[in-house]
Amino acid sequence: MQIGVIGSEVCPEKFRDVAEEVGRRIAENGAILICGGLGGVMESAARGAKKAGGTTIGILPGFDRYEANKYIDIAIVTGMSHARNVIVVRSSDALIAVAGSYGTLSEIALGLKMKKPVIVVKGCPWEIKGVIVAEDAEDAVKLAIENIKSSQQRLDPSA
Amino acid sequence: MQIGVIGSEVCPEKFRDVAEEVGRRIAENGAILICGGLGGVMESAARGAKKAGGTTIGILPGFDRYEANKYIDIAIVTGMSHARNVIVVRSSDALIAVAGSYGTLSEIALGLKMKKPVIVVKGCPWEIKGVIVAEDAEDAVKLAIENIKSSQQRLDPSA
Amino acid sequence: MQIGVIGSEVCPEKFRDVAEEVGRRIAENGAILICGGLGGVMESAARGAKKAGGTTIGILPGFDRYEANKYIDIAIVTGMSHARNVIVVRSSDALIAVAGSYGTLSEIALGLKMKKPVIVVKGCPWEIKGVIVAEDAEDAVKLAIENIKSSQQRLDPSA
Amino acid sequence: MQIGVIGSEVCPEKFRDVAEEVGRRIAENGAILICGGLGGVMESAARGAKKAGGTTIGILPGFDRYEANKYIDIAIVTGMSHARNVIVVRSSDALIAVAGSYGTLSEIALGLKMKKPVIVVKGCPWEIKGVIVAEDAEDAVKLAIENIKSSQQRLDPSA
Repeated sequence: MQIGVIGSEVCPEKFRDVAEEVGRRIAENGAILICGGLGGVMESAARGAKKAGGTTIGILPGFDRYEANKYIDIAIVTGMSHARNVIVVRSSDALIAVAGSYGTLSEIALGLKMKKPVIVVKGCPWEIKGVIVAEDAEDAVKLAIENIKSSQQRLDPSA
Repeated sequence: MQIGVIGSEVCPEKFRDVAEEVGRRIAENGAILICGGLGGVMESAARGAKKAGGTTIGILPGFDRYEANKYIDIAIVTGMSHARNVIVVRSSDALIAVAGSYGTLSEIALGLKMKKPVIVVKGCPWEIKGVIVAEDAEDAVKLAIENIKSSQQRLDPSA
Repeated sequence: MQIGVIGSEVCPEKFRDVAEEVGRRIAENGAILICGGLGGVMESAARGAKKAGGTTIGILPGFDRYEANKYIDIAIVTGMSHARNVIVVRSSDALIAVAGSYGTLSEIALGLKMKKPVIVVKGCPWEIKGVIVAEDAEDAVKLAIENIKSSQQRLDPSA
Repeated sequence: MQIGVIGSEVCPEKFRDVAEEVGRRIAENGAILICGGLGGVMESAARGAKKAGGTTIGILPGFDRYEANKYIDIAIVTGMSHARNVIVVRSSDALIAVAGSYGTLSEIALGLKMKKPVIVVKGCPWEIKGVIVAEDAEDAVKLAIENIKSSQQRLDPSA
């Protein structure tokens, strides 16, 4: 499983622990963390995943591998600015949004367009039609995994 | 001026005339119409622009120039699927949204992220924080042009 | 018809007239000029097309419409750096290369990969297998148009 | 280190072992293997890396994670067709080409444009100006690593 964590580059303090716990729980469930590779929510989530021994992928907007935060194992360097948001979304089996501004909203919208499960942790300003609202980090990762499994079951007639 | 018109590929009937009028008024104001090049709102807007003798650009998601609707003068073929949304937004000095689903929301969010004027015609489901709501097609194009001019003035110290 | 002109951003002096003549002849044949929108070969070709009253499209690598050279009518702003090369190639029915360095070679290779006619004007360092070598600007545009027509005929069983 | 392996989707039989050995030696040297994620050279190289316990990244052109070959650990799904070539190149500290057709040539050209070390194993048809020719798989990986190290030294004044 590859789970994407999306959220703003400057993470409001009260969401830092949430983002870190989301990352940690993704790793504890054996899933790979996909994110945009920069600071804020992306960095907190990646830190959480690394503390739990997980694998972290940063899909970077710029030209340089070294713009990735220090918790990123593998840097994908796109040089495509916001178009990398599309790749973050497409590469994730489910998305979890923590806080977030307009960039995050573009990813939520793309996730819904591509019919991916989009989980939004309470407090994110974008509780729009189609998203699944989670109470907290634990709930968010649980919902992400449940939704990935049920969508895979729908695809597999033998299940 | 390059003005982008965004909205769903299947245009609800009551918005067809709105989209067409938006296109017509863009052309009458001497601006170039940018859109995603496919059907629905994109096609109605392009038809309106062509009726008024304007120029229409379609930035296509697929691989084939001939997927453009018949009112497109110049087809930009990206082969990049939803990542072409980023190019529609970046190439526009202002955006006007008519109706629209999640794809349109991703473009509205990217427009706001890039600090472009984003005009939303009443009835579009995405009247989110940051957009400018227009009463109708005439109002939308007027607001787009006013906002482009005032943002250009801010950039030009001699004005 | 949309014909792409590719070549280096710094055009060796002896190729400036060639690039301008290629642009002029594209316009005289009623085709639209597609290019990367910057300086060098792209600017010379666009200047030629405008002198002959043609239409010029610049598919820009950066973030700003105003990085286009002054002969560009319509600026497509990708913000995707070299990935815009793919869009230049895909949007062109045929490609004409004048001089050119590694960026041009990447476009020649992509053009051949997509089975487009790729015309290379003598003196371009990349006379590789699969390209069609032209003696001069006149020959290049003639070969481009002939090859576009014959590939369209192959697609049209009624022809 | 992230080393990219590029080459055709249908690998000529005599290059299969070369590609596999390149992958294996990349992993044995503790580097991550980046590739396009599909069959042919990409699959042979990824198989080699996995046999040696390495990590493999596939940057896919299409829309589906499951188009990756079975030796890919992490699938980056771009939905951008050939534009993903740019991402393969940008994400690699050095590139090694085995056999390869026009797609591979576009990657070699982009690598040289971005001033990356581009190693070409003898027998690849694109021994163009600027590439470093390697005798065999062992030599290729050795040259890739040496060149990465020396380019990093140039960037680090304390070295």
